[in-house]
Amino acid sequence: MAKTTVREAMPKVTFCDVREAFLGGEDTSRAMLERCLARIDERDQDVRAFVYVNTDGARAAADEATKRYRDRRPRSAIDGMPIGLKDIFETADMPTTFGSPIFEGWCGGRDSAVAFALRKAGAVLVGKVVTTEFAATFPGPTRNPHDLARTPGGSSSGSAAAVADGMLPVAIGSQVVGSITRPASFCGVIGFKPTYGSLNRGGICDAYSQNALGTLSNNLADAYAVCHEIAVRVGGDPGSLPFQGGVRPAPAQKPQALALLETAGWKSADADAKRQFAALAELLASLGVTVIDRRSSQRVERLEQAIAEAMPITRAINCFESHWPLVELAHRRADGLSEIARERVAQARKMTVDEYQTLLALREDMSRALETLAADVDGFITLAATGPAPVGLQSTGDPGFNAPASALRVPALSLPLFEVGGLPVGLQLLGFPHRERALSGVAAFLLELQSGR
Amino acid sequence: MAKTTVREAMPKVTFCDVREAFLGGEDTSRAMLERCLARIDERDQDVRAFVYVNTDGARAAADEATKRYRDRRPRSAIDGMPIGLKDIFETADMPTTFGSPIFEGWCGGRDSAVAFALRKAGAVLVGKVVTTEFAATFPGPTRNPHDLARTPGGSSSGSAAAVADGMLPVAIGSQVVGSITRPASFCGVIGFKPTYGSLNRGGICDAYSQNALGTLSNNLADAYAVCHEIAVRVGGDPGSLPFQGGVRPAPAQKPQALALLETAGWKSADADAKRQFAALAELLASLGVTVIDRRSSQRVERLEQAIAEAMPITRAINCFESHWPLVELAHRRADGLSEIARERVAQARKMTVDEYQTLLALREDMSRALETLAADVDGFITLAATGPAPVGLQSTGDPGFNAPASALRVPALSLPLFEVGGLPVGLQLLGFPHRERALSGVAAFLLELQSGR
Repeated sequence: MAKTTVREAMPKVTFCDVREAFLGGEDTSRAMLERCLARIDERDQDVRAFVYVNTDGARAAADEATKRYRDRRPRSAIDGMPIGLKDIFETADMPTTFGSPIFEGWCGGRDSAVAFALRKAGAVLVGKVVTTEFAATFPGPTRNPHDLARTPGGSSSGSAAAVADGMLPVAIGSQVVGSITRPASFCGVIGFKPTYGSLNRGGICDAYSQNALGTLSNNLADAYAVCHEIAVRVGGDPGSLPFQGGVRPAPAQKPQALALLETAGWKSADADAKRQFAALAELLASLGVTVIDRRSSQRVERLEQAIAEAMPITRAINCFESHWPLVELAHRRADGLSEIARERVAQARKMTVDEYQTLLALREDMSRALETLAADVDGFITLAATGPAPVGLQSTGDPGFNAPASALRVPALSLPLFEVGGLPVGLQLLGFPHRERALSGVAAFLLELQSGR
Repeated sequence: MAKTTVREAMPKVTFCDVREAFLGGEDTSRAMLERCLARIDERDQDVRAFVYVNTDGARAAADEATKRYRDRRPRSAIDGMPIGLKDIFETADMPTTFGSPIFEGWCGGRDSAVAFALRKAGAVLVGKVVTTEFAATFPGPTRNPHDLARTPGGSSSGSAAAVADGMLPVAIGSQVVGSITRPASFCGVIGFKPTYGSLNRGGICDAYSQNALGTLSNNLADAYAVCHEIAVRVGGDPGSLPFQGGVRPAPAQKPQALALLETAGWKSADADAKRQFAALAELLASLGVTVIDRRSSQRVERLEQAIAEAMPITRAINCFESHWPLVELAHRRADGLSEIARERVAQARKMTVDEYQTLLALREDMSRALETLAADVDGFITLAATGPAPVGLQSTGDPGFNAPASALRVPALSLPLFEVGGLPVGLQLLGFPHRERALSGVAAFLLELQSGR
């Protein structure tokens, strides 16, 4: 059987670094959109990243952006950027299915906060990309562009695949457990999940207390520009500090110290990925970066212990928080839910307020353990997945390595630094709440380091 | 001109204390509902508390509850309770207008978390009661049952009026600034706003970071039972501790110490109301309750200073948080918004993330000032409004005395203890976050004290 890898053929589409050409007139937003549409047309029958492509609407928006650049009056750093929205974000001019057959063709008639902000910033909403059912477990049809027999990861499956395949420079995703950094790792793109609450979640399908919005992109600049332009227009969740990482990432900055995390399930992770990760840690140490881990630091050991149960705690918290809207929906339309969603509903019905309070307290313990290291390290590194994307589309893979960053509600990045058997594996970089600016300097340093090897 | 007061004629409908009769078979849920419907039929053309009465649906639900009591298998402490929902809560079987002509006849097809929980607990959803436009400033048509020429207060206008007029034992309300405790004061009922986040806000029209759900009722028992039965079924907001005040309030408990707050605008408050408030404080002191105030306590003075700007800070925070959904709605349907809503949109557009962060910090200062008193007092007392309900329906009155409890996000009660010119004025009792159980003991004590005078 012939290997279906298409990696070599994939263009890496980026925006902020080509935007100069829009200002200079050598390129236009409309021309860039047409390149994206051509790639979608060519490839999406195989990749199946898109639920809906809004060709006419996108062309009209791109033409307006083209005119603004011609008049030298772009609205923002992302004016004219072709962008995809995970299909949990309501859009006034496109259906929103939430990955569920119950909502096939449904349109609430309004823009979610993110869609509204992106439009106001001049971005071109190309379409809606595949999500798992209600951004949870049951997979959509999307395939991994690197190998169509493999999962792209989830729940932001279409977001990661569309960017990895060169259909878009950026797509919006969301993560409750591992839904940005895992698909980013599997697809070889940058996944960026800023601090929980720092991007307004109005108009999505749920309000899980770990659900953070973010981006999939091919470079840091596009990720930061998008988050910035959203935050200045609609803020974060009401009552939360909006994203403040800056309109562009910080220049590369060698960290003084990093903590190495192994997280639960480390032993069973791919051996080659772990070797490459260890080599990177050694390289960092050789460059004068202090690298601490559970063996050298009691506080890292304490943190490792606190996050060891991140996955079951996360699952149980999500389960309780399914009392609404998932249980309400099940009450009306159980026939339209996947079996795994119905199981969650059944579990939710058994949970008590008392159990939930215990879970919230356990989650707080994790944050306190993290905070003890705030003065000592610039961030944390670990793998972004247990290995390369597994074969098969029935599961979007193991989110175990991603759950700690979600439960800690800290900013996290998946950086495409490793490769196992010709498939990408990401380095995961975690920071402290609202310190996205500092984190970007470290991320830029790591990306430069790897590209220079 | 004849005075239109109807106070003497108004029945006080309660539930938990008559529920025994349901169990004994002397009364039924259906019979109670019919009494409510008869009162609505008789009075609501004048009071205009209801937007929608779901007669058939309510009768069916009441019949089912009646049968459950007959079988001696009630579902909860509020099984069979006739209840009204402020018209910002989505309901699967009734339209939800959010008090806006834009949404006239609109139905999203789902139950909000509160509606879902109430139904699961067996409560009888009688109908939707009037809210101001999007639970903000522009008033609805409701009149004060005590004097039809006066406002009932807002934004939970219909909730307060329906309960005050004897149409319902309980109606659900919500408060961002003064929308539960002010109408409760104006209408002479108990307004109960538990800790922010402790009742699930899923499926309402906004997510303002001070928006807390609560009840309007004629006794404490009904208020607590409703909050409890909601919390055990759908919890609080995701990530927040659910309401834990108990299925019934604590027995009356004389507080050891209370702090007296004057809040901004105290000087211009009604003289008679202040006299009665001062008399109550003296009575408490004479009974051995330590009553401290800004003159006797530096920390109370510090708190008074911190909350002096609660109103402008609250307004500005709400304004920034209008970036979504209000500004998005204005983008599509500005013609359907009131002038005052359009002004808020215009102000929101001028605000920056930087200003918002400053406002959040100022709000945090208030909470810190409150927390310094946590070991010393059992609660805080002040007036629930500047005086009795003003004449006219063009404004729902001054929420200045209510804003501190909203900005502090603490539990607050308005207790109908005072009377000025034949019209009710409430005592406002504030507690500490999540200490609703202790607060109910103090509230019960104050209610008994006043009824014994």
